[in-house]
Amino acid sequence: MPDAQPGGAVSGRPRGPVDPMALPRFAGAATFARLPRLDEVTSADVAVLGAPFDAGTTYRPGARFGPAHVRASSKLLRPYHPALDVLPFEVQQVVDAGDVGMNPFDIVTAVGQLEAAARRLGGDGLDLLTLGGDHTVALPLLRAVHARHGPVAVLHFDAHLDTWDTAWDAPFTHATPFRRAAEEGLLDPERCLHVGIRASLRARSDLADDEGLGFRVVTSEEFQDSGVAAVVERVRARLGEGPVYVSVDVDVLDPAHAPGTGTPEAGGLTGRELLMTLRGIAGLDVVGADVVEVAPAYDHAEVTGIAAAHVGYELLAVMGRNRIDRAARETT
Amino acid sequence: MPDAQPGGAVSGRPRGPVDPMALPRFAGAATFARLPRLDEVTSADVAVLGAPFDAGTTYRPGARFGPAHVRASSKLLRPYHPALDVLPFEVQQVVDAGDVGMNPFDIVTAVGQLEAAARRLGGDGLDLLTLGGDHTVALPLLRAVHARHGPVAVLHFDAHLDTWDTAWDAPFTHATPFRRAAEEGLLDPERCLHVGIRASLRARSDLADDEGLGFRVVTSEEFQDSGVAAVVERVRARLGEGPVYVSVDVDVLDPAHAPGTGTPEAGGLTGRELLMTLRGIAGLDVVGADVVEVAPAYDHAEVTGIAAAHVGYELLAVMGRNRIDRAARETT
Amino acid sequence: MPDAQPGGAVSGRPRGPVDPMALPRFAGAATFARLPRLDEVTSADVAVLGAPFDAGTTYRPGARFGPAHVRASSKLLRPYHPALDVLPFEVQQVVDAGDVGMNPFDIVTAVGQLEAAARRLGGDGLDLLTLGGDHTVALPLLRAVHARHGPVAVLHFDAHLDTWDTAWDAPFTHATPFRRAAEEGLLDPERCLHVGIRASLRARSDLADDEGLGFRVVTSEEFQDSGVAAVVERVRARLGEGPVYVSVDVDVLDPAHAPGTGTPEAGGLTGRELLMTLRGIAGLDVVGADVVEVAPAYDHAEVTGIAAAHVGYELLAVMGRNRIDRAARETT
Amino acid sequence: MPDAQPGGAVSGRPRGPVDPMALPRFAGAATFARLPRLDEVTSADVAVLGAPFDAGTTYRPGARFGPAHVRASSKLLRPYHPALDVLPFEVQQVVDAGDVGMNPFDIVTAVGQLEAAARRLGGDGLDLLTLGGDHTVALPLLRAVHARHGPVAVLHFDAHLDTWDTAWDAPFTHATPFRRAAEEGLLDPERCLHVGIRASLRARSDLADDEGLGFRVVTSEEFQDSGVAAVVERVRARLGEGPVYVSVDVDVLDPAHAPGTGTPEAGGLTGRELLMTLRGIAGLDVVGADVVEVAPAYDHAEVTGIAAAHVGYELLAVMGRNRIDRAARETT
Amino acid sequence: MPDAQPGGAVSGRPRGPVDPMALPRFAGAATFARLPRLDEVTSADVAVLGAPFDAGTTYRPGARFGPAHVRASSKLLRPYHPALDVLPFEVQQVVDAGDVGMNPFDIVTAVGQLEAAARRLGGDGLDLLTLGGDHTVALPLLRAVHARHGPVAVLHFDAHLDTWDTAWDAPFTHATPFRRAAEEGLLDPERCLHVGIRASLRARSDLADDEGLGFRVVTSEEFQDSGVAAVVERVRARLGEGPVYVSVDVDVLDPAHAPGTGTPEAGGLTGRELLMTLRGIAGLDVVGADVVEVAPAYDHAEVTGIAAAHVGYELLAVMGRNRIDRAARETT
Amino acid sequence: MPDAQPGGAVSGRPRGPVDPMALPRFAGAATFARLPRLDEVTSADVAVLGAPFDAGTTYRPGARFGPAHVRASSKLLRPYHPALDVLPFEVQQVVDAGDVGMNPFDIVTAVGQLEAAARRLGGDGLDLLTLGGDHTVALPLLRAVHARHGPVAVLHFDAHLDTWDTAWDAPFTHATPFRRAAEEGLLDPERCLHVGIRASLRARSDLADDEGLGFRVVTSEEFQDSGVAAVVERVRARLGEGPVYVSVDVDVLDPAHAPGTGTPEAGGLTGRELLMTLRGIAGLDVVGADVVEVAPAYDHAEVTGIAAAHVGYELLAVMGRNRIDRAARETT
Repeated sequence: MPDAQPGGAVSGRPRGPVDPMALPRFAGAATFARLPRLDEVTSADVAVLGAPFDAGTTYRPGARFGPAHVRASSKLLRPYHPALDVLPFEVQQVVDAGDVGMNPFDIVTAVGQLEAAARRLGGDGLDLLTLGGDHTVALPLLRAVHARHGPVAVLHFDAHLDTWDTAWDAPFTHATPFRRAAEEGLLDPERCLHVGIRASLRARSDLADDEGLGFRVVTSEEFQDSGVAAVVERVRARLGEGPVYVSVDVDVLDPAHAPGTGTPEAGGLTGRELLMTLRGIAGLDVVGADVVEVAPAYDHAEVTGIAAAHVGYELLAVMGRNRIDRAARETT
Repeated sequence: MPDAQPGGAVSGRPRGPVDPMALPRFAGAATFARLPRLDEVTSADVAVLGAPFDAGTTYRPGARFGPAHVRASSKLLRPYHPALDVLPFEVQQVVDAGDVGMNPFDIVTAVGQLEAAARRLGGDGLDLLTLGGDHTVALPLLRAVHARHGPVAVLHFDAHLDTWDTAWDAPFTHATPFRRAAEEGLLDPERCLHVGIRASLRARSDLADDEGLGFRVVTSEEFQDSGVAAVVERVRARLGEGPVYVSVDVDVLDPAHAPGTGTPEAGGLTGRELLMTLRGIAGLDVVGADVVEVAPAYDHAEVTGIAAAHVGYELLAVMGRNRIDRAARETT
Repeated sequence: MPDAQPGGAVSGRPRGPVDPMALPRFAGAATFARLPRLDEVTSADVAVLGAPFDAGTTYRPGARFGPAHVRASSKLLRPYHPALDVLPFEVQQVVDAGDVGMNPFDIVTAVGQLEAAARRLGGDGLDLLTLGGDHTVALPLLRAVHARHGPVAVLHFDAHLDTWDTAWDAPFTHATPFRRAAEEGLLDPERCLHVGIRASLRARSDLADDEGLGFRVVTSEEFQDSGVAAVVERVRARLGEGPVYVSVDVDVLDPAHAPGTGTPEAGGLTGRELLMTLRGIAGLDVVGADVVEVAPAYDHAEVTGIAAAHVGYELLAVMGRNRIDRAARETT
Repeated sequence: MPDAQPGGAVSGRPRGPVDPMALPRFAGAATFARLPRLDEVTSADVAVLGAPFDAGTTYRPGARFGPAHVRASSKLLRPYHPALDVLPFEVQQVVDAGDVGMNPFDIVTAVGQLEAAARRLGGDGLDLLTLGGDHTVALPLLRAVHARHGPVAVLHFDAHLDTWDTAWDAPFTHATPFRRAAEEGLLDPERCLHVGIRASLRARSDLADDEGLGFRVVTSEEFQDSGVAAVVERVRARLGEGPVYVSVDVDVLDPAHAPGTGTPEAGGLTGRELLMTLRGIAGLDVVGADVVEVAPAYDHAEVTGIAAAHVGYELLAVMGRNRIDRAARETT
Repeated sequence: MPDAQPGGAVSGRPRGPVDPMALPRFAGAATFARLPRLDEVTSADVAVLGAPFDAGTTYRPGARFGPAHVRASSKLLRPYHPALDVLPFEVQQVVDAGDVGMNPFDIVTAVGQLEAAARRLGGDGLDLLTLGGDHTVALPLLRAVHARHGPVAVLHFDAHLDTWDTAWDAPFTHATPFRRAAEEGLLDPERCLHVGIRASLRARSDLADDEGLGFRVVTSEEFQDSGVAAVVERVRARLGEGPVYVSVDVDVLDPAHAPGTGTPEAGGLTGRELLMTLRGIAGLDVVGADVVEVAPAYDHAEVTGIAAAHVGYELLAVMGRNRIDRAARETT
Repeated sequence: MPDAQPGGAVSGRPRGPVDPMALPRFAGAATFARLPRLDEVTSADVAVLGAPFDAGTTYRPGARFGPAHVRASSKLLRPYHPALDVLPFEVQQVVDAGDVGMNPFDIVTAVGQLEAAARRLGGDGLDLLTLGGDHTVALPLLRAVHARHGPVAVLHFDAHLDTWDTAWDAPFTHATPFRRAAEEGLLDPERCLHVGIRASLRARSDLADDEGLGFRVVTSEEFQDSGVAAVVERVRARLGEGPVYVSVDVDVLDPAHAPGTGTPEAGGLTGRELLMTLRGIAGLDVVGADVVEVAPAYDHAEVTGIAAAHVGYELLAVMGRNRIDRAARETT
């Protein structure tokens, strides 16, 4: 089973998932996709990072258990991604960097802890795929991304805009990360996009406010009316060139596809629509990503966890595909 | 948060949902969409009414707990409906009229109790959105609608025709409401339509019988083959002008989208298809509606309850949109 | 059905639960035990109050949905309590006072909101039975009780001591209410008692610290070794005369009896042991009580909710029994 | 595996459960305990009969699926009962007689259908162990037992008395079977007993009424205070000599032990207490029995189903033990 | 209700499902679709056979309980299939042949037991619809089909290729049936097709290996991009004339539609897509079929079981339709 | 929080669980009790070992996921055990040794793999606490224990005897470990004991056979009749001096306390009875232990997992207590 051969520092080849013939997939430690831990390799390209935090939640809590759940649901991910023709764990060293310790009682402190951890890993040249946690975590992650890359495009999959101002006087919650990020100048206002929006809103002004922050909207209904390919085209047109941060709230999926989340809204995407759209951005310069709002207490049979794990896999495949293509371009 | 300002009788403006900043969405009494109770306002336009009854069920019972479940699942509904550009709780006073006491042991008595309650509310000029209960409840509701509006078109979303004759000698069950309604002259036989039909039937004659009662059929498969827009067109063509009653059995949804129901059939609609179709009838004269057959004991993470709550929201938005447009037309 | 006759202000008799013959138990609004709301009566003796809050939780969150769940699980509670030979809803006017709006993001603010609400109700002469929420809520409730009654005995049912100092620098969490209360002088250090303690501890010193605050311990194992009657005797001996506050964390029950809680520990009490112990304190001067840490997302078939609702019923029966006996003593 | 050898008519020996070496326990048709169907043997002593009916339910419905669930949960029952030292399937021919077709919409008709089926089987000399269904079914079963044996003692395990009069004008519901049976003269008023009673009551008079019908009460609390042995003694003293009918409502168990039931009450028996009490009546002349109120939609991991299946097994073992002892006595 | 009239040997007409008016659908023995058992008829055309086996599973086990679960989930299937205009239980005698006893500890033995049973039934002229069990069972079933029909086309619905070689040295597992079948010459290498493939693979070579065995691939994404009709066309083009074996692994469905399976992969088919594709092969010569990998412990509200039961119904309808058409052709 | 200070090799003090203030209990890698991995310390005394295997199961499979589930359920275990007054993670270095790779398709191979791993760890002087897996794993573990300690007493908690001979010709299954162990001379036939036995048996001879192998029986009913203290006395009398191996099948618990298991039987122990009995053997020379048969797919809210984790904690506390006492004895 050469695709699972441990390599890492020894061989110069990235070290991949644990060989299932040595340890069956239902066994062993639950790192993401059974990948090595950060401390098991000498260098790495991409880190999967847990942000176990849900103190910014307005409805159902529980996303603090999200990272563990997504990891447990990722054990069937295998080395080869046929649609993008890439071996995401071989063309780059992907590791699991564990969870960041975040204060469960003080949002500001917690946000700072995650930002510090993300900056530290980013400083080591690692791209991050973060497993939430509630959507509050996107702000400190964007701060760290901005520190490395300057203003970025945000491709945001969600049922909700997440550009509210404050709630109960709190500036940092799962409903506000992208407003804060825009205010802090972390985003490129010409290249931000929400995908999958559908929920009822507080007021007509919500949409105008949102647009003023630099976002455009692809609704869930557009998938029904126009299909995935047309959405992908719109997405690519909006994102253009330059660094992209992808933030996936699993509530972008229909509750049938993601029951285990905190703010469920009927009428969402299927898992297949989401995965194909993500795959469709191959070639764009994805410099970081997150998958958030998995609340396992409401999940069943890991339906939500598996969807989130596959979202992570698609993102890693896109990153890997880009790495190969970039290398090829640089060679020629 | 002006959209949640209590108004009601005092201000002359409709009183909306409880302000979430005063009482978070996970708190407070579970009226539909956190709206005021009927006894809290001086006048109202639309009443959400519970019909907790399941003695007419042939397979899985439990819809007696449906109204409470749909209300509990409706707490995230917000004031503004972007697709129809309407504030359904502001352009009309919507209230929760509570549950009707229905005899759980005697179907005929229970049917009479609901009819009486519906006539009383209708007599006060209230349009009803009823939360079932099993589909037996549609008959007394149609009787009350007929008393106000004469024969109506029925737009019926369901996996099943519900035009059987009797079962175990019982004339009033969840399998028979539309046959009884047709026999009683409550329906306009030129304008009735089933949408989402797919289940296996007892006999070839079921379809012919059904057609004889004035119904036409849009199957679930037509959504797959032709898409929502084409279905909407067929629906509008069939319903035409005049009063329309909308009856939504949640089993029109695929079991993945509505596990919590009594007579599940594979191959159904997605939540998005259902919501978009409902939205598509804006402009038609909806004079009453129901959402039935939510059986919470089989639900998970409120997946079914949320779908049903959104169905209710779409219907209220359609009613509100129509109210504005009618007012606009009358003004000019 | 005279025991369910509405009385209230009109008749001078307390108004009891909704008559199930008028509205079956599976129907109607979910006030605790189907009792009237506070705003439906002219005066009341005891208020059931919801404290939907879980931002003080260290492990599984979700107790913010606790009040709604316990109310929904209380629909089968009937008027007559045979063991104490009392009609708890007839000898005193019990009402449901709804939920207190508590800030989900700021513990200090939320604690203040609950304290204010409890003081207000206490100021009106109402005794409180509070439905949590996590155990953080006990502190503001004790403050309000102290304002009316001075230092009180605490009878605390729990797997844990809840007398930690701080965690992540936060002084007010679900692990600290009784330390804070002791420090603030709210408790009578000669009359406090934990019942059901069993969990592993952080350090040997935990127990000594706890004893220093005025608490003694009845372990879960004592129920096994000595039986309920012996425990009741110990409890009564410790509590003696004077006002008593009863705080019941449902995690005092074994996880088999209360899966729906945030910090489950094996080896706990059965529901019957808990109910009989509560019943055993009849005659003591219970001036307030709470039932906390019901986390519905982890419950099944309302097993935890039903246990918590019955805990509330026992406490109301004890209060009612005392009220009669006090009246009898005062008469003679 | 001689204990599973098929015998039946051919060998003259009773035919037992399907041999698990031929067909593993997780496979094969779900007759009770994998026993033969009635139509597979030439003669039989005891029939397990399904009464799939729940139209007499006042709270959670679903017991119509009870017989199928208890059968599916009975697959691990093995041939030898060590405590009573009996092979219940070898000392008597036990068969599964399938389900009785009962009208789901008309209680009176359904009660008649069950009575007719029970009389027919009783006429063939079969003792019945009936799987409910809600407790309504006890009345027609007692009528059939009375037809064969005259007035019988009833040993009734339940949280509730089930001796209400009518509810919503219905005389035959799950709350009334033993009042109706007493009125019809089916019971021996000197020998009836409820065991496990604990729920709150409608009024103080409920108990007096019940006693007037010939019942005495062993509460759930007596198990805690006095232990199983003392309860067994009380039971045997009350039942004395003569035919006994045993009716077990699974809600006699604590909700932790029987979540899957329709009217759950906290503070109930453990499974072990129930099984040991049943075992304790060996020697009494059990002429019929039922296990009712299993509502599978609320069960988890067959916890309730397994408890009910073991209740059935204990009852069959008691019947078998009696058959041997009677034969031994008759021989000498 | 003539469509449920028992006929069988007596009338010369096939005997259909149990009449629901005699025994409601929630009652009675759980044969597939409430059809007669094999031993209840004198001759039959199609047998539904259970293969309760999961020792070949690499991830979540539990498919050993699959046959019982699919049968329990099939109770709502009715006599008439409108889309194909056929009465599948009337144009052919369909029976339930029960479960095959398969050794749970020895795969080779178990495979032999199933092959023997399938050959025996095939020898009696019965076509088989087998309910798994894990996918290991496809190999012995194909051996038996080959014995009757020679090499067959395989139409294989699955997320996975199932053409691995060995795993942990075992040649017969749920990941290998079609490689073994190809090696044994059971398949027509020009006419095999996988539908619904989407999972990540072990290596790029997996696809080439698979193609070398005679398979082509329709991915799940093709349903999204091209629609069901286009897929059906591709399927029919590949399968052409000659005998076809259809093997449906329920994991071809998205986990939202089939949570109860052993190797779930995000991004799969909807139930409607699967059913319509199956229906689309009407006219092809289906000589056998299976539905496998239903693992009930992970199912909820029978969502997976219902989907699998409907898959079975579609296959029986296709077989029935073909039987009529063939007869019609032979007549003319 | 000194009790959680990392020490390990550096400080000479054992390294304990991860400090929850650094990483909250809901976060971080799921080693047992958040202890260090074996590769993180320089030496260790006790290893927690996972044996993810369930190919020896006769009814519900799924124990292959047991080790991961018990670890996830162990996160609330804290450093101090008050009843035994011991710090189990401080008086001995306890580590998590991960899972053994066991062949899922070949029982003999898998048994060999576990034996080899256990011998290797035992050779390094480590005592083992093994997390199953099904009960098949006890045999290889006993072989490894025997290699170090010679014949041992077995204290076996279970509903079943597990001394069958073969099933479907397989010698090594979850029903046979103690017969095989006795035949291989691994056990001291004067000191073996089953505790909690209650299930129905295949035949009267089962008990005699079992006694012949050196076992005595404490039934579940003895806990009810005599209490825990009396059972503990019987246990200590039987086990006497010399090495003891403790094997805990979670099905010794009542299904209410352990729904998540493979062969559930009604009428079992409570969690508290089991934990107190385990605690009662402090002072005996426990040289190894296992907790087996946790099948997570049937668990709810980790009820079974938490019970199993606490069983492990009691066993580690007993081992630690003994270590201190031994050291104290050796000092004096």
